[in-house]
Amino acid sequence: MNELANTLASMRPVATGTAEQAQKILDQKTKPVSSLGRLEELACKLCGIYRTTSPKPLVKAIVVMAADHGIADEGVSAYPQIVTAQMLANFVRGGAAINVLAGRADAKVVIADMGTKNPPSLPTVRSHRIGNGTANFRIQPAMTRLQAVSAIEAGIRLANELIDGGINVIGVGEMGIANTTSASAITAVMLDVPAELVTGAGTGIDDVRRQHKISVIEQARQLHRPDRRDPIDVLTKVGGFEIGGLAGVMLASAARGIPVVLDGFITTASALLADGLHSEARQYFIAAHQSTEPGHRLALEKLGLKPLLDLHLRLGEGTGAALALLLLDAALAVLFEMASFDEAGVSRGVACRHALFSASQRSMS
Amino acid sequence: MNELANTLASMRPVATGTAEQAQKILDQKTKPVSSLGRLEELACKLCGIYRTTSPKPLVKAIVVMAADHGIADEGVSAYPQIVTAQMLANFVRGGAAINVLAGRADAKVVIADMGTKNPPSLPTVRSHRIGNGTANFRIQPAMTRLQAVSAIEAGIRLANELIDGGINVIGVGEMGIANTTSASAITAVMLDVPAELVTGAGTGIDDVRRQHKISVIEQARQLHRPDRRDPIDVLTKVGGFEIGGLAGVMLASAARGIPVVLDGFITTASALLADGLHSEARQYFIAAHQSTEPGHRLALEKLGLKPLLDLHLRLGEGTGAALALLLLDAALAVLFEMASFDEAGVSRGVACRHALFSASQRSMS
Repeated sequence: MNELANTLASMRPVATGTAEQAQKILDQKTKPVSSLGRLEELACKLCGIYRTTSPKPLVKAIVVMAADHGIADEGVSAYPQIVTAQMLANFVRGGAAINVLAGRADAKVVIADMGTKNPPSLPTVRSHRIGNGTANFRIQPAMTRLQAVSAIEAGIRLANELIDGGINVIGVGEMGIANTTSASAITAVMLDVPAELVTGAGTGIDDVRRQHKISVIEQARQLHRPDRRDPIDVLTKVGGFEIGGLAGVMLASAARGIPVVLDGFITTASALLADGLHSEARQYFIAAHQSTEPGHRLALEKLGLKPLLDLHLRLGEGTGAALALLLLDAALAVLFEMASFDEAGVSRGVACRHALFSASQRSMS
Repeated sequence: MNELANTLASMRPVATGTAEQAQKILDQKTKPVSSLGRLEELACKLCGIYRTTSPKPLVKAIVVMAADHGIADEGVSAYPQIVTAQMLANFVRGGAAINVLAGRADAKVVIADMGTKNPPSLPTVRSHRIGNGTANFRIQPAMTRLQAVSAIEAGIRLANELIDGGINVIGVGEMGIANTTSASAITAVMLDVPAELVTGAGTGIDDVRRQHKISVIEQARQLHRPDRRDPIDVLTKVGGFEIGGLAGVMLASAARGIPVVLDGFITTASALLADGLHSEARQYFIAAHQSTEPGHRLALEKLGLKPLLDLHLRLGEGTGAALALLLLDAALAVLFEMASFDEAGVSRGVACRHALFSASQRSMS
């Protein structure tokens, strides 16, 4: 428990003053004030996180954690459980969507087995196995409290190792057949809403199976009564090893002052747990995209995060995070490379003199 | 008029069968069917445009056309008119937002002077000057009909030259103080709606000046009665040289089977003119983003285009198009590089067997 406690103890808020300085620098660039909209907001947020208006170029990793879920026995997924291990092998061979999209973003893909049921023998997969898949949480807790803490701490260690090795931005992704059921359960508990509101089609089930999925989640809630003020209890009772591991990655990144790019619904469930463990962690989170899972929107709202993209993705693996990394690079390039009005000898607009007007424009959507 | 007539005569519809084939290929990739959402739609659209499921890697240009507008005399912009020429110089030195963002997308920036008032002596700017800025269209037509056709044909020639030189995707951008006033006028006429609905803050004017801008546009409409069934008449009476030029770029690209990535409100006004000149041109258009200009949304709806990004951009220059080019690359990478279920030895989900269900998922938003 020391690693988790130490990580939480070292968390500090982002430097909002530095973010404001970055906006002042952007306001001197040869463009109407705030006319690059959310790209400017993103540049400022990154400066606040890095505590400097001259952050280093991004060195990116996408951490993809995989695990199996006992709840798959309830027939909540469109895919057989063996697919978790098969997809791990696909990640290693470079044939999955995350490999392709991380490649576009120049991000290293780091694959971790947090506890698959059929562990493949794959040398480039990092083994942080907490167990042989979780238990079926309709019947018993998904894991022990010790396993829950171990999963989080494995994520903390992995993130610290990557950051020590020079990585300065981490995108998160996951793979685990049936893990939208766990994510829906966590989201329902942490937001204190009915499962109905936060349960979607996952990889593609029909409405009959979706109703079944909702019923399974509500049964588990009744049985275990997870305590939303205690995120480790929630993880223990209805979580997954990869979901816990990613919460650890997020906490360590935030504690080290590194931005975390969330992907879709499952990683956002991890973010809800991390947020419950430390209220300042969310300041380091960037929401890559709005997925089609209904719970994702509610979870992002709860975290106060606005997604950058809305491309109707529902794949996971970190694919949305990889696409968003392209925008992070673009945002910093604007800050670093654009000329100021003075440098370029360009006349200023009258809008620059109306600070109030600019502020109202900035909040326009 | 021959170049325009020949271009219109050589237009043909995109290959929808090829786009459907591309979707079938994507459905074999190791991911739930349609789970990459709009990225898959984009890959299919590109295959339809290129008439092959194996298009070549993208070789990208962003064509930025600049011109001055006599309507600036009416005080409709936040910036002095000299800024058009100053920004041209900034483009040449590489200090503008479009230089930075085109760099991220590996796109060549092609700058054309379509008729600035204070032509700077800049060797790398292509001169296609139609005049010394347009006339003030509150008082007289912006240009002659001959000039309107010349502007479109200059764009046709430029696009054909780029395509002959190996460019296979063109993003469009513009620079011209007061050109949102022209774009609002064109959009109001082409959509047959009051100027009030399609007139925004441009580079950042307050509401008093916005009301004035609306009034100027309505006066011009009353005076000239532009005929929306004749886009060249609309361009003549309330258009701009860069707006005409970009319509030409779009028509030539479509006629040559090359996708055009629209940027914001002004380039979309050009697209309305191109669409009015040939109803099949829009099949080659990709809407990069939804800007904050109110007329932009209506114009995109009219064209049947859904923007890829919504980042609250309102800069122009082709900046949104440059960002969208990153997504075009990503979409084709998914098609080219991902493994299929068979190649990867991954089991299929039951969702794949429910074609109807997949189709309903696909249309989900």
